[in-house]
Amino acid sequence: MELVVQKYGGSSVGTPEKISHVASRVAKSAAEGRKVVVVVSAMQGETDRLLGLAGAVSDRPTPREVDQLLATGEQVSAALLAMALKERNIEAWSMTGAQMKMRTDGAFSRARIRSLDREAIEKHLDKGNVVVATGFQGIDEEGNLNTLGRGGSDTSAVALAAALAAKECEIYTDVEGVFTADPRICPDARKIDEISFDEMMELASQGAKVLQIRSVELAMNHDVPIRVRSTFSDNPGTLVRSEDDSIEKLVVRGVSHNKNEVKMTLRKVPDQPGIAAKVFTTLAKAQINVDVIVQNTSLAGHTDLSFTVGQTDKDQTEELINQIAKEIEAEGIEVDDSIAKVSIVGVGMRAHSGVAAEMFESLHQSGVNIQMITTSEIKVTCVINRAEAETAVQALHKSFSLGAQ
Amino acid sequence: MELVVQKYGGSSVGTPEKISHVASRVAKSAAEGRKVVVVVSAMQGETDRLLGLAGAVSDRPTPREVDQLLATGEQVSAALLAMALKERNIEAWSMTGAQMKMRTDGAFSRARIRSLDREAIEKHLDKGNVVVATGFQGIDEEGNLNTLGRGGSDTSAVALAAALAAKECEIYTDVEGVFTADPRICPDARKIDEISFDEMMELASQGAKVLQIRSVELAMNHDVPIRVRSTFSDNPGTLVRSEDDSIEKLVVRGVSHNKNEVKMTLRKVPDQPGIAAKVFTTLAKAQINVDVIVQNTSLAGHTDLSFTVGQTDKDQTEELINQIAKEIEAEGIEVDDSIAKVSIVGVGMRAHSGVAAEMFESLHQSGVNIQMITTSEIKVTCVINRAEAETAVQALHKSFSLGAQ
Repeated sequence: MELVVQKYGGSSVGTPEKISHVASRVAKSAAEGRKVVVVVSAMQGETDRLLGLAGAVSDRPTPREVDQLLATGEQVSAALLAMALKERNIEAWSMTGAQMKMRTDGAFSRARIRSLDREAIEKHLDKGNVVVATGFQGIDEEGNLNTLGRGGSDTSAVALAAALAAKECEIYTDVEGVFTADPRICPDARKIDEISFDEMMELASQGAKVLQIRSVELAMNHDVPIRVRSTFSDNPGTLVRSEDDSIEKLVVRGVSHNKNEVKMTLRKVPDQPGIAAKVFTTLAKAQINVDVIVQNTSLAGHTDLSFTVGQTDKDQTEELINQIAKEIEAEGIEVDDSIAKVSIVGVGMRAHSGVAAEMFESLHQSGVNIQMITTSEIKVTCVINRAEAETAVQALHKSFSLGAQ
Repeated sequence: MELVVQKYGGSSVGTPEKISHVASRVAKSAAEGRKVVVVVSAMQGETDRLLGLAGAVSDRPTPREVDQLLATGEQVSAALLAMALKERNIEAWSMTGAQMKMRTDGAFSRARIRSLDREAIEKHLDKGNVVVATGFQGIDEEGNLNTLGRGGSDTSAVALAAALAAKECEIYTDVEGVFTADPRICPDARKIDEISFDEMMELASQGAKVLQIRSVELAMNHDVPIRVRSTFSDNPGTLVRSEDDSIEKLVVRGVSHNKNEVKMTLRKVPDQPGIAAKVFTTLAKAQINVDVIVQNTSLAGHTDLSFTVGQTDKDQTEELINQIAKEIEAEGIEVDDSIAKVSIVGVGMRAHSGVAAEMFESLHQSGVNIQMITTSEIKVTCVINRAEAETAVQALHKSFSLGAQ
């Protein structure tokens, strides 16, 4: 019997009414004769409510106890969805991270999944149950509850789909799928029917929030197709799958942008070997993700080193970089938080030259100044002024003819 | 090092402020050089909030999913208390039922504790932690979450105290201890300093709500002294302990009453062997607790059979008894929910005759009519008119000189 994993996010299970709606959808899948594993997030607002309680008893709650606290959120929504399914005469069985033996690595608040007990889940599926699994959590070797970090429920769903050899992992959300650009910026943006894992990862890393990058990585490694679709419609959504001959090789699949990064520049760095390594090793150790990195040509023994980091890492990065600047006798640092990144992504780029040039020309025509550039095999990213992000996205979306006909 | 188990109920951890207050109390105990295991209930109102969500998605939520849902309540308060302790520089470690391997028997919503993993808890105590344990819950052989039913956290605390050979199990609540009568009815009621397990069980079974009867039974079986005391004062409270030569053998330790029972009467039952057995076996199978039972003298081959059950079991009992009445060809049934029970309890009764007579005389003098009587070695209970309960309690409290001098 075909098995499908369906994941519903916090906004899809935000109220008892919405949980009942999700139950109807799940019931429909079950009635079609499929085995169904449902993965749920905490009800919208619940995580914030719990963090509010934590903040009221402690200024710096310890990560272990925060995880013990937050893990209850998914347990509540899983139990409620199981009840709502039973109300529709669908046999259902909620399972927590502990009950599924979803083993994680012990890194509180950002754990990674190591393994899970397939048999425990199959036992309940074989009895005719829909299994309702808590997303976002697991237990480590010591039995501590671990949460997976932002978007972790997507990763839980993909891990379950991989372990259970599901046909597809459906990620239900409040949008219709993945779009060629943010529809709020480009009203003619089209929903993408199929996209490769590589493209999805590049889009996700550049700010498309519809899927967590780690879940796409996991799906790619286990070749589990992901379908992103809306909880509130029957639209088939966007299928994210491995790149094969049948997938259309568009030069540009979509345009993404990100306004949550800041640019840091180390000024007048002595041009010696090992300095870039020192800077980025320090940041990596502090778990800070660095994106675009540019080092200018050396001028009289000095160079400027620029890179971007997420807005949330700004303060910590600034502190660390200030220390390094002193150690290496750089002139100082500059922080610019009025930047944005715009990217074009497409697997067809590999076989086409001149795509980057076309992007630069398009931005130039629109009067957008490029501050930094970085490229991968299937992506070109430019750092620009934040105020010009919308203009840039619109121009690129039009230049590469991504809009609806 | 001396070990103490402290249990704080829902009203003691009802808000972040109250949790911080509890943390201060626990910190004090820890600072006195004692190992401390704290058992917490869900925050006041949380269980009702969760049941409200369940009621919004299902008319008849399944017991298993209700337990999966409700078990989150204690997990939240345990994590918050652990955070609040850390905030006071007290090392703390929250543990759920699953993490303590608190094994229960699988009876959802009214499970009994079978065993627990002493070593798992001692490991964290030995590292210098206060262990904050979730009350009210355990896991069965299959890993399902089970809750223990009303007052279950008291039982969790006693089970932990027994397993860890604690010196005492302190039950913190919003009253100063066990009183000679309900102080709202007898303003001169005195706090009892020491009371035997037997007496406490009789009082608990007759409506004194300060301790759950099952927890007293467990404490007696394992000879764990329980101290009932207030979260909000330093009063030493009431010590509930085994009866030995040093405990004062009062004829009457206290007066209790219960207004939550109804009387059922089977009218004109054919006087044949096995009928009482049939009635009470049927009720026992339905998990209905029957208290006072009276069978009148047979008149011309017929008898009347009366008993009391809890108000919450009224409808189900009525249904079952109606069926039985037809089967055994009784005339019919009568339901009286305007009754109350009043009891006097004291281990000294064993050595004194005439105590029951004194009780009946006292009630008679106050104009209270006695409908049914039942006695044990250390208790006499009368069923009376509910409207006269206060009068009866006051009269008995005075007759047996229980008030403050």
